[in-house]
Amino acid sequence: MCHTILVSKNNDHLDRLARRGWVSTQGEDPILPSRAGRWLAAHTGLPGQTTMVAPESALIVPESALSATACAALSAVVGKMHVHTERAERLGRAGGLSYLDLMRRRGVGELPVPDAVVTPADPEEVQRVVEVCAANDVGLVPFGGGTSVVGGVAALRGDKAAVVVVDLVRLDKLVSVDKVSRLAVFQAGVVAPDAERMLAAHGLMLGHVPQSFERATIGGFAATRSSGQASSGYGRFEDMVEGVRIATPRGEWRLGVAPASAAGPDLRQLVVGSEGAFGVITEVTVRVRELPTVHRYEGFVLDGWEAGANAVRELAQKRVLADVTRLSDPRETEVALALSGGWKTALVRKYLRLREVGEPCLLVLGWESATAEELALRRHATMRVLRGAELAERPGGRLRPVSLGTAAGESWRRGRFAGPRQRDVLLNKGFCVETLETAAYWSSLGQLRTAVRDALVDSLSAPGRTPIVACHISHAYETGASLYFTVLVPRDGDDPEGQWQRAKAAACEAIGPLGTITHHHAVGVDHAPYLPREIGNLGMAVLSSVKYTLDPDGVLNPGKLLS
Amino acid sequence: MCHTILVSKNNDHLDRLARRGWVSTQGEDPILPSRAGRWLAAHTGLPGQTTMVAPESALIVPESALSATACAALSAVVGKMHVHTERAERLGRAGGLSYLDLMRRRGVGELPVPDAVVTPADPEEVQRVVEVCAANDVGLVPFGGGTSVVGGVAALRGDKAAVVVVDLVRLDKLVSVDKVSRLAVFQAGVVAPDAERMLAAHGLMLGHVPQSFERATIGGFAATRSSGQASSGYGRFEDMVEGVRIATPRGEWRLGVAPASAAGPDLRQLVVGSEGAFGVITEVTVRVRELPTVHRYEGFVLDGWEAGANAVRELAQKRVLADVTRLSDPRETEVALALSGGWKTALVRKYLRLREVGEPCLLVLGWESATAEELALRRHATMRVLRGAELAERPGGRLRPVSLGTAAGESWRRGRFAGPRQRDVLLNKGFCVETLETAAYWSSLGQLRTAVRDALVDSLSAPGRTPIVACHISHAYETGASLYFTVLVPRDGDDPEGQWQRAKAAACEAIGPLGTITHHHAVGVDHAPYLPREIGNLGMAVLSSVKYTLDPDGVLNPGKLLS
Repeated sequence: MCHTILVSKNNDHLDRLARRGWVSTQGEDPILPSRAGRWLAAHTGLPGQTTMVAPESALIVPESALSATACAALSAVVGKMHVHTERAERLGRAGGLSYLDLMRRRGVGELPVPDAVVTPADPEEVQRVVEVCAANDVGLVPFGGGTSVVGGVAALRGDKAAVVVVDLVRLDKLVSVDKVSRLAVFQAGVVAPDAERMLAAHGLMLGHVPQSFERATIGGFAATRSSGQASSGYGRFEDMVEGVRIATPRGEWRLGVAPASAAGPDLRQLVVGSEGAFGVITEVTVRVRELPTVHRYEGFVLDGWEAGANAVRELAQKRVLADVTRLSDPRETEVALALSGGWKTALVRKYLRLREVGEPCLLVLGWESATAEELALRRHATMRVLRGAELAERPGGRLRPVSLGTAAGESWRRGRFAGPRQRDVLLNKGFCVETLETAAYWSSLGQLRTAVRDALVDSLSAPGRTPIVACHISHAYETGASLYFTVLVPRDGDDPEGQWQRAKAAACEAIGPLGTITHHHAVGVDHAPYLPREIGNLGMAVLSSVKYTLDPDGVLNPGKLLS
Repeated sequence: MCHTILVSKNNDHLDRLARRGWVSTQGEDPILPSRAGRWLAAHTGLPGQTTMVAPESALIVPESALSATACAALSAVVGKMHVHTERAERLGRAGGLSYLDLMRRRGVGELPVPDAVVTPADPEEVQRVVEVCAANDVGLVPFGGGTSVVGGVAALRGDKAAVVVVDLVRLDKLVSVDKVSRLAVFQAGVVAPDAERMLAAHGLMLGHVPQSFERATIGGFAATRSSGQASSGYGRFEDMVEGVRIATPRGEWRLGVAPASAAGPDLRQLVVGSEGAFGVITEVTVRVRELPTVHRYEGFVLDGWEAGANAVRELAQKRVLADVTRLSDPRETEVALALSGGWKTALVRKYLRLREVGEPCLLVLGWESATAEELALRRHATMRVLRGAELAERPGGRLRPVSLGTAAGESWRRGRFAGPRQRDVLLNKGFCVETLETAAYWSSLGQLRTAVRDALVDSLSAPGRTPIVACHISHAYETGASLYFTVLVPRDGDDPEGQWQRAKAAACEAIGPLGTITHHHAVGVDHAPYLPREIGNLGMAVLSSVKYTLDPDGVLNPGKLLS
């Protein structure tokens, strides 16, 4: 999951809104400088029409199809006031935050509105809700922060007459902390900032910082194999999961007794990434770390994508990655400079010319540590390798990273969650803006970037519409890395859905032979057609058999993961 | 897997023997000094009788029950010369290397002898062998180095009339190397020393060094979630597995396209640890590393188990573990000093007394690096934390590690695979010697050690028999660690099987509420009764459904993992 839409830095406000599902930025400060708008229009073409978010009253919400029997049974479990069938509550949980989800809020296409929203109080109530749904053959969509960008929380019915969203907003507790073992047990509905606040009181932190941080939940992270911006330092979320508690139609299931085990296959890794299709994750035991007291974020410019990717590879393979390691390709670097703007940009450009950087690629490195000494040691190890990195295309040649200092790093850090807010403004202005991501082994990475970029550019180019396709490496491993693409193009007013669907399909086809269909956005609805290609027919058969074992009636998150 | 029995350092000899299954050390140099034997007798009591390995002719080998039809079908796939029904070949694959396995070689209990041994040439032939077995309802036991200590390679029939061992000895190739991505594809039957030799030619290494290193195979490591002595530096084997190729009755299954993915649950982690019950692993893609050019192994003595464990915990949680980090408890330290012996031991003891170490615990730390500078940096980071570690029982007090220098570290390194050879000698002399292991979170670790030790001591104590129960931490994680127990006691000549079975059961019961039933020895036959306790009835149902999906006739490794 990647996108978030936040309207306030006031925490109470954030909490309240985050717990209401869909949140519009309508009426918020415009955060796109007019100069940036002009730059975009000049480089992509002028959008034909603006499209603001539709008022709720303009959206189509069908009558609730939940039977009186099922409604009564759910009310008996959670109390009548926690079974919501009001229009606003149901609209609030009608899908996630993909481009097409956001367009549905603008009247394009049909919103997947649930028949009711149920808000159980605790894992025991979730278990009983799951059983009631199974007994009444009602579909059930687990809902955390609602930040899925792949249709993971769309209230699809499958073969069921009705579907309810189980919003885990009341499962907001830190259950326990084991400081000695560095373990914390969270209820699944805890949003990430709350998790960090509760841990900070114990001098601890989780360190999981995806772009959806401000709204996404612990349960959602586990359900989707989320990966944070600081994954190089803190690991992917599946690396942090030590235990899970899951409500299934067959009963509760708990896993996790030790940091590592050879007691058969690791079934935790079967639950992590199961996207609500095997059960509702109600509690997660996570590995936590000492709260860092110092951090240092720095910006650098490297010359050329290949040299930059090579340098990141060396950092990963010598195991001296900074906690945050993020390399933009020349196009993304150009766009970042253009959109951040003003005299600073001009100064940076001039500086880079003086340093003879032909094809600037922005590299952000960030370290976080318990002590300044430790940070200095780690930074030294990173920088030693970075400065000594060999140029792939010029053996013997050495990388000469140009430092932009901590100001550039801190600027990135401050704006790290702002992308989705910018996107909302751009959507209003008539642009199509979306992201997609993949990962591959290092030897395929260059080819993968080219193939996906070309597929997107080809698919989206039209008279008067020149797409911008920018890319960065956001997560690096010893054997490979992820690629994150941002796409921006004037919207095709006649066929906004088809415009993006064709581009997405072209990108997915291009990924096919080279990498994974998703590195951290999960499968949901959008990637389900591409899963067999990746795990084979036997993989699909295995997933289906697990699904059937735990959810024999198929009530759990219909249409997701296994379509 | 933990034990190995090696008779020669000559590689050709090793290769030849390792590929013949069971290897006896009969007639090898006695490697237990007589002084050590006296020390043991004084501390444990004198064994009542010696028990040498029985000659093959004395062992009971039933007639092969493989039908002529099945035999012909197997011969049609692999060629007649690769279907072995000779007594020696079948005896060579009759079980692994647990204490009870070794006692069966001494005429105690029944050897699980397969009806035939099949040696396919490559993954394609393995696939067809699996299909032939399924078609003929013949049980199939995949066999690598044969080093299982939990019955994982016992040729059990289950409900089948016949069972064959599929020995992967001919799958001994390095299939490909991707130096850029640091990936290597191995056939499953490659033994670890061969894997390292083949990688070294490319300047690479795997770094997986379990005690079974000299005989165990790449496929076996993956099938059992093996963990090496340098797991702190190189990771557990499951951390190294990037891809797998598996032969199942339903067809071939391949997994692994990227270093990380959110495309649903990680099915590789379902195959890793499946112990041949879901399919025969035929190829493994592993993450490899640059071959280190320098290493440094050092010995230290810490004062007291609790202080030592606390120090290892701090190293893990500050992420400055040495590649090898191994802490012996006072009893293991005492035994190590006693058995290594001579004037060196006396000197060490005297030195420790002078330094006022009341309860010596041996700590071995080992670092391996590409450059001396890198090693120095990493060692500095470790030692800074080790020297600053706070004493849990005396807040504010600091650990004072007593250095024994690199001689002690190198001595451990040289002898790191010798344990099983020593065990063979001790078995001949009439001792019961076995190991078992578990893992738990840090906050339970002290209690777990006490509980398991007490259970073993209580169970094994008898007039004239005083058990030695020694323990060490061999693998440390941020949230917990493994405990490895070595048990030595004069054998109960009247009931050697019952003596150990009761002790093992008592230990397993003691582990129950506190940790995992196995950290790296796997489930096999011995731990199968304890698996439901750990993963729940739903976990068992999930494993069964996966098994049924991939192996509907239940021919794969009957009686293992799922009993």
